[in-house]
Amino acid sequence: MRTIEWHDGAVRMIDQRKLPHEYVEVEFIDYRQVALAIEEMYVRGAPAIGAAAAYGLALAAVHSKARSEAQLVADVKEAADVLRNTRPTASNLFWALDRMLGRMDDGTLEGIEQIQQALVVEAQALADEDVAVNKRMGTYGAELIEDGYNILTHCNAGALATVDYGTALAPIRTAWKQGMRVHVFVDETRPRLQGARLTAWELMREGIPMTLIVDNAAGHFIQAGEVDIVFVGADRVVANGDVANKIGTYKLAVVAKENGVPFYPVVPTSTIDLAIDSGEGIPIEERDPHEVTHVCGQPIAPEGVRVANPAFDVTPHRYVSGIVTEHGIVYPPFRKGLCSVVEGRRP
Amino acid sequence: MRTIEWHDGAVRMIDQRKLPHEYVEVEFIDYRQVALAIEEMYVRGAPAIGAAAAYGLALAAVHSKARSEAQLVADVKEAADVLRNTRPTASNLFWALDRMLGRMDDGTLEGIEQIQQALVVEAQALADEDVAVNKRMGTYGAELIEDGYNILTHCNAGALATVDYGTALAPIRTAWKQGMRVHVFVDETRPRLQGARLTAWELMREGIPMTLIVDNAAGHFIQAGEVDIVFVGADRVVANGDVANKIGTYKLAVVAKENGVPFYPVVPTSTIDLAIDSGEGIPIEERDPHEVTHVCGQPIAPEGVRVANPAFDVTPHRYVSGIVTEHGIVYPPFRKGLCSVVEGRRP
Repeated sequence: MRTIEWHDGAVRMIDQRKLPHEYVEVEFIDYRQVALAIEEMYVRGAPAIGAAAAYGLALAAVHSKARSEAQLVADVKEAADVLRNTRPTASNLFWALDRMLGRMDDGTLEGIEQIQQALVVEAQALADEDVAVNKRMGTYGAELIEDGYNILTHCNAGALATVDYGTALAPIRTAWKQGMRVHVFVDETRPRLQGARLTAWELMREGIPMTLIVDNAAGHFIQAGEVDIVFVGADRVVANGDVANKIGTYKLAVVAKENGVPFYPVVPTSTIDLAIDSGEGIPIEERDPHEVTHVCGQPIAPEGVRVANPAFDVTPHRYVSGIVTEHGIVYPPFRKGLCSVVEGRRP
Repeated sequence: MRTIEWHDGAVRMIDQRKLPHEYVEVEFIDYRQVALAIEEMYVRGAPAIGAAAAYGLALAAVHSKARSEAQLVADVKEAADVLRNTRPTASNLFWALDRMLGRMDDGTLEGIEQIQQALVVEAQALADEDVAVNKRMGTYGAELIEDGYNILTHCNAGALATVDYGTALAPIRTAWKQGMRVHVFVDETRPRLQGARLTAWELMREGIPMTLIVDNAAGHFIQAGEVDIVFVGADRVVANGDVANKIGTYKLAVVAKENGVPFYPVVPTSTIDLAIDSGEGIPIEERDPHEVTHVCGQPIAPEGVRVANPAFDVTPHRYVSGIVTEHGIVYPPFRKGLCSVVEGRRP
């Protein structure tokens, strides 16, 4: 199972809004539908959003009606603008679009057909690399796990947040495959319940022992000494090591540190944005109040209530024990190590 | 509006499970129904549970078929045992039952009718005192608020958690009545959403400006400097100042302290339990997994998922700025001040 894949001139993805109750795959041939699917969270999770955007651009190229190379390039750039404006926080979206546009403009391609083919190949390469990168992070991250560990995770940074295998769940999967006994506390992750709906579903399918808790209960178990390590994904990691991730991550990181529990974001280098120096520079998406006031279509609050619904928060680097990447684990101070891994070197 | 009251030989209470969508009052004449209503959270909140238990005992006395004083005393004690076993964490339950039994056994009552009447009078006095106590806490607590303050609260420690006026919401109500401009961030408070359902409803009815947030977002706003003070209620405060309150309070207190935001539980002395020395001694209720896996009857997680659902957590006293009581605000170190207020003196 891949969260998102290229299929015969179309992009096929799981409609994650329907999990765990229904497993539905949808296929799009119009890049605008892919943009909408990103916005409406059919597909979510920074690396999966990146792959979706890349495939979206491939669709734009393949289904463009351009009769000239110049027109095709213009069509693809227009599509990139549409895709770029879907969600503001995840770094991978911009990284993937830039990589695709860079391939188009690298000076080696000639003619409409060659550009179209190259963009499909590039999107597929990006998706394949995502899986390979996640497996490498799994190997590095698993070194932090010991037999019998209780691991806590927030939101879904699993296979469904990526093309496959996951980021935060990669070390857990790898440790489990290596024969370690692990148990995962899964934060349900309001408002959209990605933990309850997606992480629980993934772990249960593989038989990895887990316990679902409300986000409020994480502190209780950390304080009680029942959590050995915290793994989360990230939507953007910036130059100083500050980490934007799903709302609630900051609280979790503070409480983990307060109790001496190590806290590790697991992030591919495509999530690292060295152009921003510190967390204050990261744009935080404000989403629809309906996500807070309704659960499964049912109202849970008085009609007309005022709501604030930031989708992400920023965890300052001082709460971060280390950052697991596909080139190794970066430890504080983060600046130098993050530069190294972004350049493809060991930290 | 009183959350719970005596009405013509019956106990009338709001069925809080149905708020904010329906306002339903129910009447019970059997104390066993009151016990069930406590267990199933028709009525919740430590002080309201205390009042419900007291009224429950009054019902047991009034509707007892005893023909002798000894039999009546036995019936009331049996009812006290049933009521005592409804919920384990809130101190006020045991305090109220002990007060009622103390009145019955104080040596001044003779005959069935006198005992019955005395217990009704005692329950009503207890309920009336609750309101008076809350107003006094409101006055003390309002001294901590300045014009323009943003206040964060967790769960519902409002009128609905008490007979009227509330604990954590009392200082906010008082400040608002004094003409201060305040704004309240309301944690929705999973799993049972008492913030979204009850606190939002109370504040909106009175026109006090508020914003509903998911519990995960509280850290974001605290970190951003948008919260000036945190007020919560409590289910039990023990001798060293450790505070048991709704699950999630601990995380909130840690993050508040980390950001220099004052954190004040507002608790009547009926919530203070000097018989327990520190938080480790407080029994924490584990509630039905269904509270986590379902919202408004809709499943939000895969079927058969394993769940942990502690209803409360313990905030160690080092995160507590002060404890607002009806005799004044107790500051650290708490031991001496808590003894004073329990004895009815200023801290």
